[in-house]
Amino acid sequence: MIKAGIIGSTGYAGQELVRLLLAHPEVEIVWYGSRSYVDQNYSDVYGNMFKLVDAKCLDDDLGRLSEEADVIFTATPQGYLAGVMSEDILKKVKVVDLSADFRLKNVRVYEKWYGIEHKAPQFLQEAVYGLSELNREDVRNARLLANPGCYTTTSILSLYPLVREHLIDPMTIIVDAKSGVSGAGRGAKVANLYAEVNESIKPYGVTTHRHTPEIEEQLGYAFMAGEADAGEGQQNNFKIGQKAYEEGNAGGNALTINFTPHLVPMNRGILATCYASLTGKYSYDDIRAVYERYYGDEFFIRLLPKGKCPETRWVEGSNFVDIGFIIDERTNRVIVMGALDNMVKGAAGQAIQNMNLMFGLEETMGLRLPPVFP
Amino acid sequence: MIKAGIIGSTGYAGQELVRLLLAHPEVEIVWYGSRSYVDQNYSDVYGNMFKLVDAKCLDDDLGRLSEEADVIFTATPQGYLAGVMSEDILKKVKVVDLSADFRLKNVRVYEKWYGIEHKAPQFLQEAVYGLSELNREDVRNARLLANPGCYTTTSILSLYPLVREHLIDPMTIIVDAKSGVSGAGRGAKVANLYAEVNESIKPYGVTTHRHTPEIEEQLGYAFMAGEADAGEGQQNNFKIGQKAYEEGNAGGNALTINFTPHLVPMNRGILATCYASLTGKYSYDDIRAVYERYYGDEFFIRLLPKGKCPETRWVEGSNFVDIGFIIDERTNRVIVMGALDNMVKGAAGQAIQNMNLMFGLEETMGLRLPPVFP
Amino acid sequence: MIKAGIIGSTGYAGQELVRLLLAHPEVEIVWYGSRSYVDQNYSDVYGNMFKLVDAKCLDDDLGRLSEEADVIFTATPQGYLAGVMSEDILKKVKVVDLSADFRLKNVRVYEKWYGIEHKAPQFLQEAVYGLSELNREDVRNARLLANPGCYTTTSILSLYPLVREHLIDPMTIIVDAKSGVSGAGRGAKVANLYAEVNESIKPYGVTTHRHTPEIEEQLGYAFMAGEADAGEGQQNNFKIGQKAYEEGNAGGNALTINFTPHLVPMNRGILATCYASLTGKYSYDDIRAVYERYYGDEFFIRLLPKGKCPETRWVEGSNFVDIGFIIDERTNRVIVMGALDNMVKGAAGQAIQNMNLMFGLEETMGLRLPPVFP
Amino acid sequence: MIKAGIIGSTGYAGQELVRLLLAHPEVEIVWYGSRSYVDQNYSDVYGNMFKLVDAKCLDDDLGRLSEEADVIFTATPQGYLAGVMSEDILKKVKVVDLSADFRLKNVRVYEKWYGIEHKAPQFLQEAVYGLSELNREDVRNARLLANPGCYTTTSILSLYPLVREHLIDPMTIIVDAKSGVSGAGRGAKVANLYAEVNESIKPYGVTTHRHTPEIEEQLGYAFMAGEADAGEGQQNNFKIGQKAYEEGNAGGNALTINFTPHLVPMNRGILATCYASLTGKYSYDDIRAVYERYYGDEFFIRLLPKGKCPETRWVEGSNFVDIGFIIDERTNRVIVMGALDNMVKGAAGQAIQNMNLMFGLEETMGLRLPPVFP
Repeated sequence: MIKAGIIGSTGYAGQELVRLLLAHPEVEIVWYGSRSYVDQNYSDVYGNMFKLVDAKCLDDDLGRLSEEADVIFTATPQGYLAGVMSEDILKKVKVVDLSADFRLKNVRVYEKWYGIEHKAPQFLQEAVYGLSELNREDVRNARLLANPGCYTTTSILSLYPLVREHLIDPMTIIVDAKSGVSGAGRGAKVANLYAEVNESIKPYGVTTHRHTPEIEEQLGYAFMAGEADAGEGQQNNFKIGQKAYEEGNAGGNALTINFTPHLVPMNRGILATCYASLTGKYSYDDIRAVYERYYGDEFFIRLLPKGKCPETRWVEGSNFVDIGFIIDERTNRVIVMGALDNMVKGAAGQAIQNMNLMFGLEETMGLRLPPVFP
Repeated sequence: MIKAGIIGSTGYAGQELVRLLLAHPEVEIVWYGSRSYVDQNYSDVYGNMFKLVDAKCLDDDLGRLSEEADVIFTATPQGYLAGVMSEDILKKVKVVDLSADFRLKNVRVYEKWYGIEHKAPQFLQEAVYGLSELNREDVRNARLLANPGCYTTTSILSLYPLVREHLIDPMTIIVDAKSGVSGAGRGAKVANLYAEVNESIKPYGVTTHRHTPEIEEQLGYAFMAGEADAGEGQQNNFKIGQKAYEEGNAGGNALTINFTPHLVPMNRGILATCYASLTGKYSYDDIRAVYERYYGDEFFIRLLPKGKCPETRWVEGSNFVDIGFIIDERTNRVIVMGALDNMVKGAAGQAIQNMNLMFGLEETMGLRLPPVFP
Repeated sequence: MIKAGIIGSTGYAGQELVRLLLAHPEVEIVWYGSRSYVDQNYSDVYGNMFKLVDAKCLDDDLGRLSEEADVIFTATPQGYLAGVMSEDILKKVKVVDLSADFRLKNVRVYEKWYGIEHKAPQFLQEAVYGLSELNREDVRNARLLANPGCYTTTSILSLYPLVREHLIDPMTIIVDAKSGVSGAGRGAKVANLYAEVNESIKPYGVTTHRHTPEIEEQLGYAFMAGEADAGEGQQNNFKIGQKAYEEGNAGGNALTINFTPHLVPMNRGILATCYASLTGKYSYDDIRAVYERYYGDEFFIRLLPKGKCPETRWVEGSNFVDIGFIIDERTNRVIVMGALDNMVKGAAGQAIQNMNLMFGLEETMGLRLPPVFP
Repeated sequence: MIKAGIIGSTGYAGQELVRLLLAHPEVEIVWYGSRSYVDQNYSDVYGNMFKLVDAKCLDDDLGRLSEEADVIFTATPQGYLAGVMSEDILKKVKVVDLSADFRLKNVRVYEKWYGIEHKAPQFLQEAVYGLSELNREDVRNARLLANPGCYTTTSILSLYPLVREHLIDPMTIIVDAKSGVSGAGRGAKVANLYAEVNESIKPYGVTTHRHTPEIEEQLGYAFMAGEADAGEGQQNNFKIGQKAYEEGNAGGNALTINFTPHLVPMNRGILATCYASLTGKYSYDDIRAVYERYYGDEFFIRLLPKGKCPETRWVEGSNFVDIGFIIDERTNRVIVMGALDNMVKGAAGQAIQNMNLMFGLEETMGLRLPPVFP
């Protein structure tokens, strides 16, 4: 049994890790970390875990935890993990970080968008960006895994094949995304009260949301990898693109997007509606063939039949990403839509998928849950 | 592998059977029955099952199905199963009926509350009422299993120990129940449209809801069993009470309740708030001890700590029933509250729990799912 | 124009006062009081008021406000108004208090249920309990108006005729009430976050909710008034009952209820489902005639046609109370159901209805808004 | 008093007309038309109208109604009004049509997008497109008023000044829109059941939604009018643009958009998030000045302060449109966001605003309702 510790187990993403790991046949949770609820029963914080978790919340002593666990999941505020990370820890334990601390390779970009100093830039190159389907080989060998954001997972997976194959103009991408409220976390804020969120939809973080550079960087790699391999098909190693991206300084200019998130009155789910101009006249079948080539064998990516659009209700509670697309001949744009559960494939589920890869387990272990409806 | 067929697989309860059986290690679904969607892909009817179920809907040919399956689940309208049931079928296959056709022992009561003629009264005595925790031994030997209603499961489990032990006056019981909308089924009715249900709560079926006689009958058995065994503790065999109930004609008068269901704007969940006058001065600990004696070892019944009340969010997606109670010294009443997921313990989950018992499997197999929150 | 000041204008009830008073032809708001948002634009706190309210929030200086206003509405935490009330203020201005400070006549009862010392018990006798329909004459002459609670308005209006006419046993009353989330206020608490409240129903304050003694006191008056006038019909003056209630010390024992509130995932609305044993065999028409006699001429009380039950969606945004009842011959109980909008008839609307009476205006002025659906 | 008849009064938009007209000081409703509920009490169809509307539903006899009414509102399915319209009717009564029958000037465009034959193309030129703020003068003189769609009102008002002033490239416009469920109407469809819509967001009608050509036509006029008047500022007469648009055949090619609607789990509200590339380097203040020039004096259009984005909760129940915009210097795009209540400014409210203009009443009469929150 793999011993897992969770730092930040009382946030929504942390609790979802608990839910999924309880059902994982090869993992045992040894540490329920929580800064706010130390010494309280975990099941007093989350009543669903009553009689399932008989443990008290512990503090976030990463050092001690690294002695006791085989893997640590950090579902913590931005900056926390970078502030405590060390070579010593990584020698003892694998770390799957659900925060943004090690997602962006460029420390200046991180500091600009997040507004805080990065305390451990020396690990940025080593950290592996854990979009499992696109970066599988590197994930297997990772010590430090940067688990992608929820919006970014949806957006990147939706657009990746088109960008990689240069089927769309990388300067025309617009991602209009919609998220359930659990993505905002469990903090007590007026803006997230029931009566404020219910019966309303609102945009937020327009032009400034922090998932923007993450999407741009990863799609930038894909675009540069496309340059490099000129359509040889899927190469799960982002490094080709990453190298080209960095060398050329081109990526930063080559692909710039508009990303607009919206808050939707529902608990879970992300829908990304992505627009881009096609670089030529492509038929549905042309595009379909590309998606099939990249994703046809992926268990967690479901390419919907022609004419069907994703809906968040069909993925809730599961690790699936549903993707559909429609070509508008009038404007020669493609509209690609992706849907996932922000708590699962957008956070805890993908973290466990990465953990499975890192420990040589079957990638889907503990994650083959059918979506829950209604 | 047990071969399971589902008649009515495209209703909400039927779909929940599919979800749960897909994750059951010892069951294979061989028949997706649906009168409305014959020949359509199941995953076109329920998009969550895309890539998980590769089957078309079949008609409801019970005869043919009884040749192909080991167990048949019927999630059908009232009257359907009674209209087609035969000794021939029961010789070939076990049947778990999620409709009300075989729940009430007295055919006159059935015909009065349901307003239809019962076409197979000869099976009423044989049919076993599948409140798994209370009737476990008979369930193991059942050929025809009457799976209880969602409101009834909540209400009976909440009140059973108090009635059985004569701690409450059986003529003072009031059950004020609240249900999510999935309980109303997937039929296209104006009353169940989003904009009609959302932002509203309403009572319905006041004094006339069909779960009333079901609760009264089963609690009547419990009361008469209490007479008989005078407090010897839990006896899972309802038959003692049933016999006394029927012989004395007393039960029908001995326990009469008010039951009022309400529709709540949420997908899943039932909460029953039950009121009754205590027959003496009992302390919290007195009552607690009784509940512990009856339910202390039950996996799916969670007795909440003192002072905690059930909330439907903590059981969603799981087979748990959460029960809490509070004594009001001012009125000498006890308020018992029970919560469960109407799709799981209130329908498909309990059906599978009963199937497990009927086939000699571990009772909780495939049902140990932690509740999903938020 | 009547000059109105609002202390606590940035809570939900305060904001509803603003919404309704903006549409009132005889009122001008001169003071937007708010402890938390002093000096901020009111429309920055409530975006719906953008371009409608061009004012900044002021502090809660009751003394200064009493110089500038003709009427003060206090939508403040319990204890605030009692802490600052004085004869000097009441000489200058009429006060409509939406808090509980002056609702209960008995200071000991207040201090027991609210757990705080009452700082101005000398005004308790003078304060008029503003259930407008039942206490109209006294309201007209009030200087200090205690505006009833939301649950209490629903419960008392639902049961009043039955209690007053001794048609139900006063010791058998059970009120199972359900409320939307706005009743919980705008405070930033984890328990009221969207993802905590959504998709769940829960009971709270079981046996301990503070509206219990308020309902008991007012229905106790009604019961004693019934003793006194022995069925002479409606007398809007509670004082008969109040006197008898206090003299006899009987009321406290004569009528004791169970009151159980529940939180429902919706913004607005209260539904009270009330149960009581009838004192004789009464037909629907018997009971109907009594309700007609008491409420037949009331604009804001809508007695629903036979067989219809109230639903909160039909009163949302309006000052209406919808009442329906059903007699259960099996148990000889009556189930009375009342529904209203907790923000309007349960708070701000009734406050304005009382203000209209206190200033000699037409009682329904500014309040004839049709309910908003869907 | 103006006598108003409503054909289709039992749909959601029809009911909203009733709600608003009941509060209108100069209108009396004389005809509650409804094909489905003839002879039933209106208040049995909509319980909120109990005791407010004492009338039975009548059939949809437009001829008879034209004798009895001064104005007829038609909230009917596409094709109905075109099928019964005649010069005779228009000689007797003014008609405000909430369907799409007379919105598109080009009958071929109508027949292509709606898939039905247009039965009264001879009235297309006369019909006035009732976007009140943009077409005020023509509305005053209209006999036949084509009331705009809900999505179109939001989209056109959001983008109009930018298009008219040629500040954005008309071939880069993308409108990603989100709507509450009331927009889908009261028809009994599985897709609109509570449990299907709740906890989900989905796109629909991608590239094919019928509001697309309506937006394109009106913005096309604006663009051509901009050509014509070269920035002389607001001219409420669309005819300039319309003429240029038609003569040049240019409009159809000059402005083509992507429009993607989404269904959001809420009762009311539309949010349109609009993207377009700026034609030059414009500052926030540049753009702001243009919006102020066009909309600064409009009562129902609220230009939000810099940095604020619209949220549907702030307009619910009112006739307001809230508009905000943000410039993204990285991509040189502007993101304009508009929010309104689809039942009010998106349907019944705008219809009454137009009626006010057509009858020489104050434009805002009966429509100055503050938004209802929460």
